[in-house]
Amino acid sequence: MEFDSINHISSRSEFVNEDINDHSSVNSEQPSRIFYPKTHEECQQLVIWANQTNASLFTRGAGTGTTGGAICTKGDQIGISLVHMNNILDLDQINATITVEPGVILSRIHQAVEAVGLFYPPDPASLNRCTIGGNVAENAGGPRALKYGVTKDYVIGLKGVWANGESFEYGGKLKKNVAGYDLIGLLTGSEGTLAVITEITLKLRPKPTVIAEAIAGYKSTEDALIALTNTLTRGVLPSTAEFMVERCMSASLAYSNEAPVMASFPAYVIWQVDGQTVEDVNKQLNQIKSFSKGATFLMMDTDDLSNRVWGLRRNVSLGLKQVAKKKYSEDIVVPIGNVPEVIKRLETLNHPSGIEVLGYGHLGDGNIHVNILKMSASEDDWERFSPDVIEQVMAIALKYGGSISGEHGIGVTKKQFMPLMFSNHDLHIMKQIKTIVDPLGILNPGKLHP
Amino acid sequence: MEFDSINHISSRSEFVNEDINDHSSVNSEQPSRIFYPKTHEECQQLVIWANQTNASLFTRGAGTGTTGGAICTKGDQIGISLVHMNNILDLDQINATITVEPGVILSRIHQAVEAVGLFYPPDPASLNRCTIGGNVAENAGGPRALKYGVTKDYVIGLKGVWANGESFEYGGKLKKNVAGYDLIGLLTGSEGTLAVITEITLKLRPKPTVIAEAIAGYKSTEDALIALTNTLTRGVLPSTAEFMVERCMSASLAYSNEAPVMASFPAYVIWQVDGQTVEDVNKQLNQIKSFSKGATFLMMDTDDLSNRVWGLRRNVSLGLKQVAKKKYSEDIVVPIGNVPEVIKRLETLNHPSGIEVLGYGHLGDGNIHVNILKMSASEDDWERFSPDVIEQVMAIALKYGGSISGEHGIGVTKKQFMPLMFSNHDLHIMKQIKTIVDPLGILNPGKLHP
Repeated sequence: MEFDSINHISSRSEFVNEDINDHSSVNSEQPSRIFYPKTHEECQQLVIWANQTNASLFTRGAGTGTTGGAICTKGDQIGISLVHMNNILDLDQINATITVEPGVILSRIHQAVEAVGLFYPPDPASLNRCTIGGNVAENAGGPRALKYGVTKDYVIGLKGVWANGESFEYGGKLKKNVAGYDLIGLLTGSEGTLAVITEITLKLRPKPTVIAEAIAGYKSTEDALIALTNTLTRGVLPSTAEFMVERCMSASLAYSNEAPVMASFPAYVIWQVDGQTVEDVNKQLNQIKSFSKGATFLMMDTDDLSNRVWGLRRNVSLGLKQVAKKKYSEDIVVPIGNVPEVIKRLETLNHPSGIEVLGYGHLGDGNIHVNILKMSASEDDWERFSPDVIEQVMAIALKYGGSISGEHGIGVTKKQFMPLMFSNHDLHIMKQIKTIVDPLGILNPGKLHP
Repeated sequence: MEFDSINHISSRSEFVNEDINDHSSVNSEQPSRIFYPKTHEECQQLVIWANQTNASLFTRGAGTGTTGGAICTKGDQIGISLVHMNNILDLDQINATITVEPGVILSRIHQAVEAVGLFYPPDPASLNRCTIGGNVAENAGGPRALKYGVTKDYVIGLKGVWANGESFEYGGKLKKNVAGYDLIGLLTGSEGTLAVITEITLKLRPKPTVIAEAIAGYKSTEDALIALTNTLTRGVLPSTAEFMVERCMSASLAYSNEAPVMASFPAYVIWQVDGQTVEDVNKQLNQIKSFSKGATFLMMDTDDLSNRVWGLRRNVSLGLKQVAKKKYSEDIVVPIGNVPEVIKRLETLNHPSGIEVLGYGHLGDGNIHVNILKMSASEDDWERFSPDVIEQVMAIALKYGGSISGEHGIGVTKKQFMPLMFSNHDLHIMKQIKTIVDPLGILNPGKLHP
């Protein structure tokens, strides 16, 4: 391949694992080269070059995605890594906005805005490693979505390059904007298939001044849900209601090499509430307690205990990976009222060959991370039966009014399930939208569209 | 025209003003007929019939829009009024969602959800008349957008009929959902140009248990803005910060035939804060006061005073209409930090022929309602100069990093300004999206697209 017109952009042609893989179970192919542009203009040059040479591009941030959206799917593809575009361009206290390049690590944004009394809520578990560009591409969520919504609820300005090489700049520091179709909304969550995003403006909220947290042990998932729904209809919106069953807790304890923080219960919820005064947050927490029949609460009232509990929550996935020899992580979402029933239905998918299925995650918004675990199953049985188990997980999600993805996106691992959820006409509309802006199919081919 | 296949759907062919007009300055043409479907299936039959006969359709709710989006632009068009599809289908307390038909009046939704401790925040001034379908079509806002966002932040499920007659059903009672391109987001705010929406699911929040309100008089718009931005960076997010200058207040007082509620000031802000406890809301209001240098606060602590002040705010537009002989209302949005400068720049647009320009509205989110008033100008001068004044209003919005529409949409009155804001390629993308789902141009022709 000729790189003459883009040779001035820094690039590499040899890679270690983390340069090319993500956190899905799919292995990346070796790309021809990965470019590391530093400016919008360099990104545009790369896309124009790809259109001229009919090259295939895939765009990457930190590679923390879990559906293969940022990997190389064929050996002749070219990568665009945006990790060197990592400047915070403008933190505007008057307008309560921040404008950043896509390669900025999410936790840097949290720190920068909180230092001036502002708040950017989305908090995926990978917040210390993931980039904001990846968050926008996947429309990332996190525990605080319950109270504060997901990435798309904060994106108010985007600059970038459409797949055909045209630059765009939409929105800005605007809290409202209804001129024409919502192209910012269309781009957010489009998984790198429509454009390369080079600048992002996020709206910010005031930082909550008082936070209180507790972990509560419940006798059943239903009891935990009753506490949540009663709370919601009495004026209290917790900032998190993270859910796990005993099996998840013990796996995480073993992985983290920690002593239990409380007695053993069938189900746990990590509650966080926030507000302006101590009275306010105490009142919220007392409401939750009053609806938590027979539950035991442990206040997470020291930094140490808070860090330990949240560490246990974040290590569930790694803990289950240690328990099982291999695992797949799926990411379904259902109406919160169906969570207890779906958790039970998932357990019926355990396969006699030695495959186990376990759900945990965000009780507050119905987003369940489903782990399919290779326990005693042989390699052959795992290969043979696990795809069917995954398909049944999707079928359960849809049967209970849900979606095949809550916050991880479609990428390559879930695209075969899109027809379960969408009609041919729906898929045709999505494909045609892709064709409008990317007639040659340059950007992220083989992702999202089945 | 042959109506055989749709004759069973109730319809009318004679109309009074309110059947066909909206609140814009554009007069509707007389449509051939308006149909009043009662079901999704009847809507689909109408759209299929239109595709077969190449008829043009426009869809209406209550006709409270201000940009001509719901009017008939040519005499051979057929209307679809959704006002008879006005059932609340499901109020789900466990999932904190409500599912409604498009013809439900917004205030009915407010009442229904608040009766069970839940809350649907969007609150355009027309809330006692406008329909939720129109709100979704225009992505309506309102004063509470400052704290709680706009309509699109609450739409999580849509059922309807694409312009080519295909039915769709996206989302549901889901708080997260990232499967494929965000078609719900694309439809919300698409102004009836892409689909007829027949069922809407909204997510709800807990109802705030304590509310406090005050109107404050400031020595200048800058002083009001300083209070707002200092407040935002100290952890307090008011639910409203509605702004008007003295001229607006006096016009509204005259129109409402009311005595002043407080002494005269150059600028007023109506502050509302909400929370869980009296201490909490008092603390928030005290923060606002502490940053309001030289301002005078009047607590709106009785229902009577609250209703009077909000009545004055909602009557500003009618008050100015009474002061002037004619007026145009525009709806720009700028970064909040630019509001004081933009308010000043708007005043420089006063035209020596006797045209005055005045901005007021939502300080908290930068959304300024600009009124162009025919004062002493002759009819000829008004016709001659007002279009140029409107164009300069748009130019100011864009110069200060803003948008030509904050919450009213584009319709017919603003489509000529779309090229000021979007490149040819941007407009091409929007037009192509329209063509994908409406190849024959059946739905709302002549709206939104320039």
